[in-house]
Amino acid sequence: MNERLRNLSNWLTEVNAEVAFLTSPDNVFYLSGFLSDPHERILGIAVFQEAEPFLICPGMEKEEAKSAGWPYEVIGYSDTEDPWELVQQKITSRVANIHKVAIEKEHMTVERYEHLKKIFNDVQIISAESKLRQLRLKKDPNELKSIQKACALADYAIEAGIAEIREGKTEMEVLAAIEYALKKKGVLEMSFSTMVLTGINAASPHGTPGNTKIKKGDLVLFDLGVVVDGYCSDITRTVAYHDITTEQEKIYQTVLTAQMEALKAIKPGVSCSQIDLTARNIIASSGYGDFFPHRLGHGLGISVHEYPSVTETNQLPLEEGMVFTVEPGIYVPNVAGVRIEDDVIVTSSGSEVLTKFPKELQVIK
Amino acid sequence: MNERLRNLSNWLTEVNAEVAFLTSPDNVFYLSGFLSDPHERILGIAVFQEAEPFLICPGMEKEEAKSAGWPYEVIGYSDTEDPWELVQQKITSRVANIHKVAIEKEHMTVERYEHLKKIFNDVQIISAESKLRQLRLKKDPNELKSIQKACALADYAIEAGIAEIREGKTEMEVLAAIEYALKKKGVLEMSFSTMVLTGINAASPHGTPGNTKIKKGDLVLFDLGVVVDGYCSDITRTVAYHDITTEQEKIYQTVLTAQMEALKAIKPGVSCSQIDLTARNIIASSGYGDFFPHRLGHGLGISVHEYPSVTETNQLPLEEGMVFTVEPGIYVPNVAGVRIEDDVIVTSSGSEVLTKFPKELQVIK
Repeated sequence: MNERLRNLSNWLTEVNAEVAFLTSPDNVFYLSGFLSDPHERILGIAVFQEAEPFLICPGMEKEEAKSAGWPYEVIGYSDTEDPWELVQQKITSRVANIHKVAIEKEHMTVERYEHLKKIFNDVQIISAESKLRQLRLKKDPNELKSIQKACALADYAIEAGIAEIREGKTEMEVLAAIEYALKKKGVLEMSFSTMVLTGINAASPHGTPGNTKIKKGDLVLFDLGVVVDGYCSDITRTVAYHDITTEQEKIYQTVLTAQMEALKAIKPGVSCSQIDLTARNIIASSGYGDFFPHRLGHGLGISVHEYPSVTETNQLPLEEGMVFTVEPGIYVPNVAGVRIEDDVIVTSSGSEVLTKFPKELQVIK
Repeated sequence: MNERLRNLSNWLTEVNAEVAFLTSPDNVFYLSGFLSDPHERILGIAVFQEAEPFLICPGMEKEEAKSAGWPYEVIGYSDTEDPWELVQQKITSRVANIHKVAIEKEHMTVERYEHLKKIFNDVQIISAESKLRQLRLKKDPNELKSIQKACALADYAIEAGIAEIREGKTEMEVLAAIEYALKKKGVLEMSFSTMVLTGINAASPHGTPGNTKIKKGDLVLFDLGVVVDGYCSDITRTVAYHDITTEQEKIYQTVLTAQMEALKAIKPGVSCSQIDLTARNIIASSGYGDFFPHRLGHGLGISVHEYPSVTETNQLPLEEGMVFTVEPGIYVPNVAGVRIEDDVIVTSSGSEVLTKFPKELQVIK
């Protein structure tokens, strides 16, 4: 078994559960290398303390799962078969008596849970999620390579977006140009819905792009990410279109200082809380404390939001290999919204910033 | 209460459940007009037999929910509050003793289910999903208007895609051009991942677009949909690039005949099964029965896949106002893949096809 499966098996032994049955596309990909989202159909991996794991998927994806490198049994089912019967057979053929099953409680639906309870009478069901989050916290060199590629494309997307800025262009037109440029490079999926917000729209941390036109004196905010080989990037840049006011510029420089000081503070052993507070205190001491309403950042990998969560209360110490975003923002209604976000990996002595697009205030004319 | 809420309240009385607590963005939108996806945060509507319903959402979305037209209580919660405590308070302040709660078992996660079980000790939990599917089956005139707009944009997208076809262009380049054209028209969301497949790629019902180039003699398949005001469209067209073989043409004409005959068979009282079999029998009698591996169609509305399911076994009789796709296909590996799909509404005397792009074989040169 690969190291990831071995870690999970060892954990099953520790918690005395006979099997983990995992069905989220992200964790299936993490454990098997097989990336697929069969929507309402079941895709799952069963991992045991000692017995060989298996993967179950819709029949038409069976060959794909094998060619993705999964070396163990793959069970394909047709639309007329009951996949739960197959799950029961295959699990009980490996371990006769099942007393405790680990699942993803934040992913599995009640309907599936009831199926599981029915095929394993009186079984105790526990959550495998915190274990998987812990396993996925530190990225290995291959994962880092994919994230780096995704970050390079995110940099490219920001460049493409800035090149589109013109008086009177709408947010949606700029957004369309960015995604067109990415698709021409073969990008199939964004990490989340691309954001292009201009002027006071950017001052709402939950704005959505629309038909607002760019005009002189606007700050234009881009927040986007790209998926490469199953791994996400996430970048935010804010640029000025023509001259901005002194207050807009003060907000920009405050966010930039907070972001760069937080990046400097990153190294193994420092807590997530300390990183968040480094930025938060700078923003507060500039008088904008009430206008930074969200956490500093979030882990990033197969999911665009994963662990660690970089909040002022998370005491988790950083370790080499963790990847997360650093994205302070200030949103003053009707005045300006600025956010600057990079993706970063913790190294043995500090950190490496993976998104490289320049951050000094750019004034586009 | 509006008719939708009243129908749900009446059903709660019938099944003797005190409350329905619904958390899927689609059903919340259906019942409230508020369209939002707060991801891991809770968005929910509680509906009672007699008491006034309420909506709970993240605090920053509270004003949006109100301005979407929800006239009852809106409870906003901050990230430091426990939304389950609020749910418990607000429900028990309306009905003191809760014995039976209706939820969406195919949507609610086990983690949320356990919260619900904890706040309502020993409560019986039933599924509201089949009731909601039944309520959503027939579209009202406002829903139809949104679907018609989404269909018109889907037609436009096909036109834009066909205009991009050139020797040597990749699937992804054509796809990028389609989505660019749509975004320029203000489209924020596609119903699902757009498909552009050329040549033998189209012969796999589960192909994904990539860097394959269009070449003479290819059939090029487009499958896409657009979301307008929360409602989906879904269209497929297949066109020829330069001359195709006699067999490719025979496959095309067989699919077209099957599709048009199935459309003609639609009227109130006819079963879903009869519509599916109308197309399936035509394809089978042309010798391609083994190469049409999926159902004829699916309902369409707030979800891109909803009821009715148009399969050969579904005996549900059609009723005026139902909206669904009619999409027969023939996929002969290494030879050709053809699918033709329209969206259709059942009328008092027959049906109206909502997607209007021409279907006769087009040969692009």
